[in-house]
Amino acid sequence: METIKYTLTEDQMPTAWYNIQADLPTSMPPVLHPGTGQPITPSDLEPLFPMELIVQEVSQERWIEIPEQVQSIYRQWRPTPLYRARRLEQALDTPAKIYYKYEGVSPTGSHKPNTAVAQAYYNKQAGVKRLTTETGAGQWGSSLAFAGALFGLEVVVYMVKVSYQQKPYRRALMEAYGAKVIASPSEETAAGRKILAQYPESNGSLGIAISEAVEAVQDRQTKYALGSVLNHVLLHQTVIGYEAIAQLEQAGDYPDIVVGCTGGGSNFAGIAFPFIGAKLRGEQNNIRFVAVEPAACPTLTKGKYTYDFGDTAHLTPLVKMHTLGNSFMPEGVHAGGLRYHGMAPLLSHVVELGLIETRAEPQLSCFAAGLTFARVEGILPAPEANHAVKAAIDEALRCKEEGTSKTILFNLCGHGHFDMQAYMDYQAGLLRDTEYNAEEVAMALAGLPVFN
Amino acid sequence: METIKYTLTEDQMPTAWYNIQADLPTSMPPVLHPGTGQPITPSDLEPLFPMELIVQEVSQERWIEIPEQVQSIYRQWRPTPLYRARRLEQALDTPAKIYYKYEGVSPTGSHKPNTAVAQAYYNKQAGVKRLTTETGAGQWGSSLAFAGALFGLEVVVYMVKVSYQQKPYRRALMEAYGAKVIASPSEETAAGRKILAQYPESNGSLGIAISEAVEAVQDRQTKYALGSVLNHVLLHQTVIGYEAIAQLEQAGDYPDIVVGCTGGGSNFAGIAFPFIGAKLRGEQNNIRFVAVEPAACPTLTKGKYTYDFGDTAHLTPLVKMHTLGNSFMPEGVHAGGLRYHGMAPLLSHVVELGLIETRAEPQLSCFAAGLTFARVEGILPAPEANHAVKAAIDEALRCKEEGTSKTILFNLCGHGHFDMQAYMDYQAGLLRDTEYNAEEVAMALAGLPVFN
Repeated sequence: METIKYTLTEDQMPTAWYNIQADLPTSMPPVLHPGTGQPITPSDLEPLFPMELIVQEVSQERWIEIPEQVQSIYRQWRPTPLYRARRLEQALDTPAKIYYKYEGVSPTGSHKPNTAVAQAYYNKQAGVKRLTTETGAGQWGSSLAFAGALFGLEVVVYMVKVSYQQKPYRRALMEAYGAKVIASPSEETAAGRKILAQYPESNGSLGIAISEAVEAVQDRQTKYALGSVLNHVLLHQTVIGYEAIAQLEQAGDYPDIVVGCTGGGSNFAGIAFPFIGAKLRGEQNNIRFVAVEPAACPTLTKGKYTYDFGDTAHLTPLVKMHTLGNSFMPEGVHAGGLRYHGMAPLLSHVVELGLIETRAEPQLSCFAAGLTFARVEGILPAPEANHAVKAAIDEALRCKEEGTSKTILFNLCGHGHFDMQAYMDYQAGLLRDTEYNAEEVAMALAGLPVFN
Repeated sequence: METIKYTLTEDQMPTAWYNIQADLPTSMPPVLHPGTGQPITPSDLEPLFPMELIVQEVSQERWIEIPEQVQSIYRQWRPTPLYRARRLEQALDTPAKIYYKYEGVSPTGSHKPNTAVAQAYYNKQAGVKRLTTETGAGQWGSSLAFAGALFGLEVVVYMVKVSYQQKPYRRALMEAYGAKVIASPSEETAAGRKILAQYPESNGSLGIAISEAVEAVQDRQTKYALGSVLNHVLLHQTVIGYEAIAQLEQAGDYPDIVVGCTGGGSNFAGIAFPFIGAKLRGEQNNIRFVAVEPAACPTLTKGKYTYDFGDTAHLTPLVKMHTLGNSFMPEGVHAGGLRYHGMAPLLSHVVELGLIETRAEPQLSCFAAGLTFARVEGILPAPEANHAVKAAIDEALRCKEEGTSKTILFNLCGHGHFDMQAYMDYQAGLLRDTEYNAEEVAMALAGLPVFN
């Protein structure tokens, strides 16, 4: 029954973010301008982001200092705890050691504030007054609303319509923080109106909501913020992995396997990149990395590594990533945060370098794993995080079969308190496993522009 | 913008609960047997509680050791952080220093697991297999479900029907932990059937749900658990105050004013009793204590200090407490955890000793205070906790008027992530302030048995 928790003092908190680009054997493919097909320049991005974030986006420096004010706000909930899942190990009767990093202690219950606070800070420094963004399940939108409130920034959130309707409580949390929330597709943007004209009943998608949020940036005091996918977002999340390294040092341990779920890629990168960096620098070997995605939106396992737009209306630059095609509409699985047609280009690149194993899981087995976890460890995971729980349990059971004692670390990136409808539906037997539609993906991919 | 957080290491965690009874100038009035009117004996309580908890209920010892296994589970989320609310102080432009202890980091988001884990532990030790309980808003029920899951105990929760219907997500959390949840009044007990026969449309109340949960204890392997009111419950919550004392010592500070909200009394006692004890022992003077309750259920400010039943069907012993009468039905305010006709007898006794100021607040001003707090401090409080936030803000504003710099400590006993409907209703202008009905209270009080 024992709880084993590893904590850090505030002065053991990372003071810099880790940029894996400094350690990669080959650079990422360039980001292309959709008009010219040529690599974009920082000034192309300037209407959307403050210069400090653009500099981070393209930086090749290994360490980027975390501003004191951002560190100060991180201290509200960071360092987050690392737990040894002893009760889960006992329940599985496995010789494996299972550790999990718990990001659900943040004010909005997920890892998203790690980047929301940083982005709000740099925008505030640049004199920005208003941020636009999109949100799917609402974890990102509520986190940016939280950060915006602390910095006195207006926040406008385009929320995927199906979530807007089905997850009113996430919307209410954003509104409690003072943000304006708009169901997407909306009448407020040309991108939204175009979709509505074609599909009046559209449930929306992250790709559409991104189009609207990007289009809504129409004056110099308004900028756009994204909760995953971009290099600087992944960068900000690396505090997770660096804290975990220090905490595992306390435990006298080092992982053989690091597991995380992937939607846009930021929580996985947050926990894994610091360990991948150590491997790339030859400091540690024999460590495996497992990225787990929903079978209904299998970007890494079934997508194509190619240039695509980040959004549906083709307002973003072209990035090379694993994608199901920007017009692909994933099934309405409950892990809303994992329903994105693409993947962080940086994470895609690392996958292409052969550094990460990928795996797709159907949702029912993930919910089952989440409930098992809740009943022995006491924390109810978000449906997204259940994908990581499932893979960690599978790895632990494999250890049992093989009679080996591996050390498994996974990222419990958020709690499920805002996802109770999903658990109710699961326990009532109302959910089913949905496969992605291979034909739709093929069509969506066929529509992509060709750049090598 | 700076966050100032005071943390403790695990070895600074309290290893004993504090029993204020050891320091009181006069003892509590006895608990009476409803049949005989005579003081009850421990054996009268034996059908309901394991002997160790009964011993705690009547103990006069100052310190009661926290079992190692309970401490171990506490360590999952304890010590909880103490924050200096610098951003709130700035927003109010007050010379006061405001500190808050944050219990929302527990797995169920409130202070309730502090006693749920202890109660589950002692029941498990006594060979109990099943616990029955009641819950209003669901914070207690979900906490006992959590604790029951960890100890392998079945948990059956009678949930006040209006909450069962309006707060399905709290119910879903209990069910996720494996508990059985029954809407109260139910057909499963004589007490429930009697109410339903008289009032088929009854929304239920905590008093009714307690009757059902107590009645449902019908074999020796089933016991009853209560989330507030009883001495041993208040005792278990004192870890909150003792941690706060150690954290304020770090800050080089000591409160002039300690604030908490009161429903059954346990979170208030948890933060305040350790400080009241220090005052009673003459170690500290010039400290005030403020208990804040909803104007719609003003037990301490408008109730009578007299003997009453803890439940509606008169199945519990008689306790002397501030009460609105066990048949009083409070309005459906959103702070469901504060809607109880009575008050912890121990807290009532301390109020009668003149040690605590009491205050009733209407709900709209409490929600406004909660949103102010959320937007500057980043944490959205539970509606119950908003009562404490309101009083802390009022005290800080008084300091501003008077030009004095007092140190204010309040207990932020839980987060509001399960209470978003309340915030939505508040922000949509759908809530109103409700006064208690003085005539109904007079009638409910007139029906009470007379024992001095």
